[in-house]
Amino acid sequence: MAEPKRNIYLETIPVDAAVARAKAALDRGGVAGVQTIPSQDAAGRVLAAPVFARQSSPASHCAAMDGVAVQASATYAAREGQPVVLVKGQDWWPVNTGHPLPPHLPQLDAVIMIEQVQSLDDERIAIEAAAYPWQHVRRIGEDIVATELLFPRGKLLTPYDVGALLSAGIWDVDVVGRVHMQVIPTGDEILDFTTRPTPGPGQVVESNSMVLAALGRQAGCTVERRPPVADDPAALEAAVREALAAGAQVVVVCAGSSAGSKDFTRHVFERVGELLVHGIAAMPGKPTLLAAAAQGRALLMGAPGYPVSSVVAFEEVLAPVLAWLHHEPESVRPRIEAVLTRKSPSRLGIEEFLRCSVGTVRGRHVASPLGRGAGNITTLCRAQGVVRIPRDVEGLEQGGRVEVELLVPRSVLDQTVVAVGSHDNTLDLLADALMAKDPAFALASSHVGSMGGITALAAGACHMAGAHLFDPATNDFNFPFLAKHLPHVALRVVNLAIRHQGLMVAPGNPLGIAGVADLARPDVRFVNRQRGAGTRILLDHHLITAGVDPRAVNGYGKEEHTHMAVAANVASGAADCGLGIQAAAKALGLEFVPLALERYDLLIPEDLLETPHVQAVLACLDDAAFQARIQALGGYETTLCGRTMQPGQGLGEG
Amino acid sequence: MAEPKRNIYLETIPVDAAVARAKAALDRGGVAGVQTIPSQDAAGRVLAAPVFARQSSPASHCAAMDGVAVQASATYAAREGQPVVLVKGQDWWPVNTGHPLPPHLPQLDAVIMIEQVQSLDDERIAIEAAAYPWQHVRRIGEDIVATELLFPRGKLLTPYDVGALLSAGIWDVDVVGRVHMQVIPTGDEILDFTTRPTPGPGQVVESNSMVLAALGRQAGCTVERRPPVADDPAALEAAVREALAAGAQVVVVCAGSSAGSKDFTRHVFERVGELLVHGIAAMPGKPTLLAAAAQGRALLMGAPGYPVSSVVAFEEVLAPVLAWLHHEPESVRPRIEAVLTRKSPSRLGIEEFLRCSVGTVRGRHVASPLGRGAGNITTLCRAQGVVRIPRDVEGLEQGGRVEVELLVPRSVLDQTVVAVGSHDNTLDLLADALMAKDPAFALASSHVGSMGGITALAAGACHMAGAHLFDPATNDFNFPFLAKHLPHVALRVVNLAIRHQGLMVAPGNPLGIAGVADLARPDVRFVNRQRGAGTRILLDHHLITAGVDPRAVNGYGKEEHTHMAVAANVASGAADCGLGIQAAAKALGLEFVPLALERYDLLIPEDLLETPHVQAVLACLDDAAFQARIQALGGYETTLCGRTMQPGQGLGEG
Repeated sequence: MAEPKRNIYLETIPVDAAVARAKAALDRGGVAGVQTIPSQDAAGRVLAAPVFARQSSPASHCAAMDGVAVQASATYAAREGQPVVLVKGQDWWPVNTGHPLPPHLPQLDAVIMIEQVQSLDDERIAIEAAAYPWQHVRRIGEDIVATELLFPRGKLLTPYDVGALLSAGIWDVDVVGRVHMQVIPTGDEILDFTTRPTPGPGQVVESNSMVLAALGRQAGCTVERRPPVADDPAALEAAVREALAAGAQVVVVCAGSSAGSKDFTRHVFERVGELLVHGIAAMPGKPTLLAAAAQGRALLMGAPGYPVSSVVAFEEVLAPVLAWLHHEPESVRPRIEAVLTRKSPSRLGIEEFLRCSVGTVRGRHVASPLGRGAGNITTLCRAQGVVRIPRDVEGLEQGGRVEVELLVPRSVLDQTVVAVGSHDNTLDLLADALMAKDPAFALASSHVGSMGGITALAAGACHMAGAHLFDPATNDFNFPFLAKHLPHVALRVVNLAIRHQGLMVAPGNPLGIAGVADLARPDVRFVNRQRGAGTRILLDHHLITAGVDPRAVNGYGKEEHTHMAVAANVASGAADCGLGIQAAAKALGLEFVPLALERYDLLIPEDLLETPHVQAVLACLDDAAFQARIQALGGYETTLCGRTMQPGQGLGEG
Repeated sequence: MAEPKRNIYLETIPVDAAVARAKAALDRGGVAGVQTIPSQDAAGRVLAAPVFARQSSPASHCAAMDGVAVQASATYAAREGQPVVLVKGQDWWPVNTGHPLPPHLPQLDAVIMIEQVQSLDDERIAIEAAAYPWQHVRRIGEDIVATELLFPRGKLLTPYDVGALLSAGIWDVDVVGRVHMQVIPTGDEILDFTTRPTPGPGQVVESNSMVLAALGRQAGCTVERRPPVADDPAALEAAVREALAAGAQVVVVCAGSSAGSKDFTRHVFERVGELLVHGIAAMPGKPTLLAAAAQGRALLMGAPGYPVSSVVAFEEVLAPVLAWLHHEPESVRPRIEAVLTRKSPSRLGIEEFLRCSVGTVRGRHVASPLGRGAGNITTLCRAQGVVRIPRDVEGLEQGGRVEVELLVPRSVLDQTVVAVGSHDNTLDLLADALMAKDPAFALASSHVGSMGGITALAAGACHMAGAHLFDPATNDFNFPFLAKHLPHVALRVVNLAIRHQGLMVAPGNPLGIAGVADLARPDVRFVNRQRGAGTRILLDHHLITAGVDPRAVNGYGKEEHTHMAVAANVASGAADCGLGIQAAAKALGLEFVPLALERYDLLIPEDLLETPHVQAVLACLDDAAFQARIQALGGYETTLCGRTMQPGQGLGEG
């Protein structure tokens, strides 16, 4: 066949080797260059040359206290009870902190604090203690001496340094220039976000270029995004050459860095420069390309097409090179040790970057791996941290201690409510309500189904678990499962909402699905929830009640992890129906065939009830405005919202 | 007497109480407001409202691998050795990673990786394993589902989030506005740096306003600095009112916040708004003023006049309020535990901020307190960290473990050479040369005299000590002192430079000072170095040789800690002469009466010789360009520079 070609990488090398290769190929001084800027704008910049003070500071002797300036020797006779009397304009002069001593009176060499001065009249003062020479005087050059080295080259200037520069009479400084980076999005299928498009079938809104642009600015570059280029080698080569001609020292080509039939980046880089790297031993991030151009004065990077892969390529490979070009220390994320809540296998020989939801429960940091799909940017958005699985490790064990690199300030972790369990859209409203509080709380929510939440509670890995486990035998929710799986854990069960579960079908219900009995029809393609999910248990109950054999349900084995994913299957025509909540059906314009009401509760360990985290959640539930927002979603009742549930209560008032 | 008045503060309250008072007085939502900005510019901003996805991502099913798209059921018969043959355009379609499946073919539900496809001819392929439904397919909404909550309000948007926003079809976002801050410098004695002035007698270049402006920008504010205002209450009131009228939500008045005779800020604040705080229990930083204005929509701050005090006032009081107004987490510095190298007493009831030079020696962090003068901004510039001494602690012990808040990235500490001992200008050249290396090393240098360096070596608190201790009995340098004070420490002694010591006198040598014998003259005012300094030992030797009684030397007890400080005394007329190096004399235009040559050596523990830190230093010393820079200073010989010294060598070639 003519297309596509096989994947062929130059070689897959470790991340640090890729960085080293880029550094070796670049002319460090020639890339960023030197820029002269006003000192007052220099905070955050790196000195390109040493700075020597032009003026001393203080430029003359100054008072270090409010009081009176005197000649110390005139006070030597003063003792307690034997005051010396001094006359204004003859023996003493008033001075304020920071002000120079009267410059026409060089004999003044001490300041007496105003608290130790006794005023006799408008002219005369008495003092009862001798002043020593240079007492409370800041002497010329105490801070800065003219001609001395003020700062060595390479200093990363702080706001404080701006003060020192101006005090030293340095009005301009030579600093390391900013690398200019241009980003080129590529692909026949992409839509330019600047046109505010609505994607049609087979189209994708391009966004990676702006993620990389934002990361580039964060790394100190000036950045320009070029217009998207189609999958055409000539057009791509022209765009890369134009970027270089426009002064770019770093050119990033988004997508096309692998070796598919439309991956032209490597070919173009080989024409424009010298290929350095094709393939890094990282997951995500493998199809990363590097090339040197313009006699080592420019670096070309081919970033993978998947958003998470392109972020890894930037942060692990390009960012260290940029820091080196800018003469700045590499940005290092704060690190904490945490307990990993789920086993995470990994491939030998590849360094893997595991996005995790992180929080602090009972003073212990816990990290829950999020989805690993490199195509899902939201796994990065929702992560509070990243765990590196080194190349020589096959995976990480559940319950093991891991080092987490934080994506959020460390203080945020202590203001994070960790929820693990079943997903519901009301949890999103809760997340928003928690952020509106002062102080705000973040909700870190892992969606692993109701039974997964109970497992997390058993492991002490969360502040609360969302569950809607229906027990057909008792017609009750959650309690029978807690009695069985968590008999020794004291829990408070608080209702969040009563919700409608039903069958989501296409608009107009073309197959006329009226209940679970229809799921056995051969022409009905069903989409299921994962094992352990409360919705799945509810389905099984209704299948039994209706006398339907699960094996007769076409699609029973096809599992999705959220209501919205089930709805999306139906909306896209991938399935004809699925069981879920009304909110999901409404959100995607589906019809909803009601089946049952169920209780969605929060299971909260008693010992955490008084934590600010849980108290903040409970305060939200009790808020009428919050309940009104739940009702506005449709498909929910809030009659029990915020109430403590009792065993056997079912859907009743308790 | 009419002036100055006594210090009267409203009350001196703890820093956190001052912050709480400001928050209570402000209308949080009304200050910063809400701003609508393009999503692609939103990294670093905080969402003012929740964001719900407008589009799903992927918007349609996409290939997750390079390969061929098929209908899974068409492959079910495939087994190893029993291939299924598929025809292009009928059974399979080529696809590349990230590209949508052909939208006109909804039956396609799986992708087979190109590596598992055997090409028979241009049209036909064979596969030997069944594909399962949705294999290697990213389904619609896998990342983002339309209508779902994408981000809660209050989220600090990252570059990653920019990608999610654009993918979700969100082109603009409402974010929390930036507080607009205006800074007003005040004082009759100040010069406006924008005029690039040369300070005359009694004048000071104003720089605090730009330090606070830079800190304000770092805290996310838009900042404008207003022209300086004289010490005139009416003018100051007008400036504050103009700042408010110009839309400032925070107005910072630099200096005049205390209660001296020219401190009008409090008076003005009481007229313009409602006074909240006058006096915080912090050192430096005490004379801090806060007032609310514009019905809680503006905050006025009176910053102390001392630069370090104004920084503390900003960072401890204003920065937390700004973070709260911006709905951002408070900026928290990285913290490490270190050993304090010197005792630091502190006053009860006051929280003290101790600037420290910090580095890592033998894997242990060490912190050396720098000067405590609030007027010296360079104590902040040179500090790698700050140690807080709490209000209820009277001081910190030498050798004690302290928590250090880092002012530099943690990684910088491991790239820092810690030098403690005598100061010499060649050390500044060394600092600059070390920063020019790749990787760069910072030189953290504490100036405590040669004997102080030996004490630091004994405590294991430095990588090296600079010393020039002369032993008259043996006519040798350093070794006799090491034999006495550090007999059990294996040290390498490496020469940095031979330097000229001599008497610094005013230009033209008006008193005709020709040698140490002249120091006994009653008309000659001498300025000495501190006890333990090598220069002082040298002086004492020459005094003995010349038969001069130290008690006869006018100023023998007046001590300075650096050569430059001694020179500044002579340059300003505060003294007539002092002993020091030629470089210092030359720097301030003084005359120099040569007295002796001496060896300035680096004392390096043998066990640290192979560290990259020491190796970097030794490489600098061996560099001819570095030696040429030393010679260019004047007053130095580099014949021994970089050589290992032996006992008894004196100034000879060894």
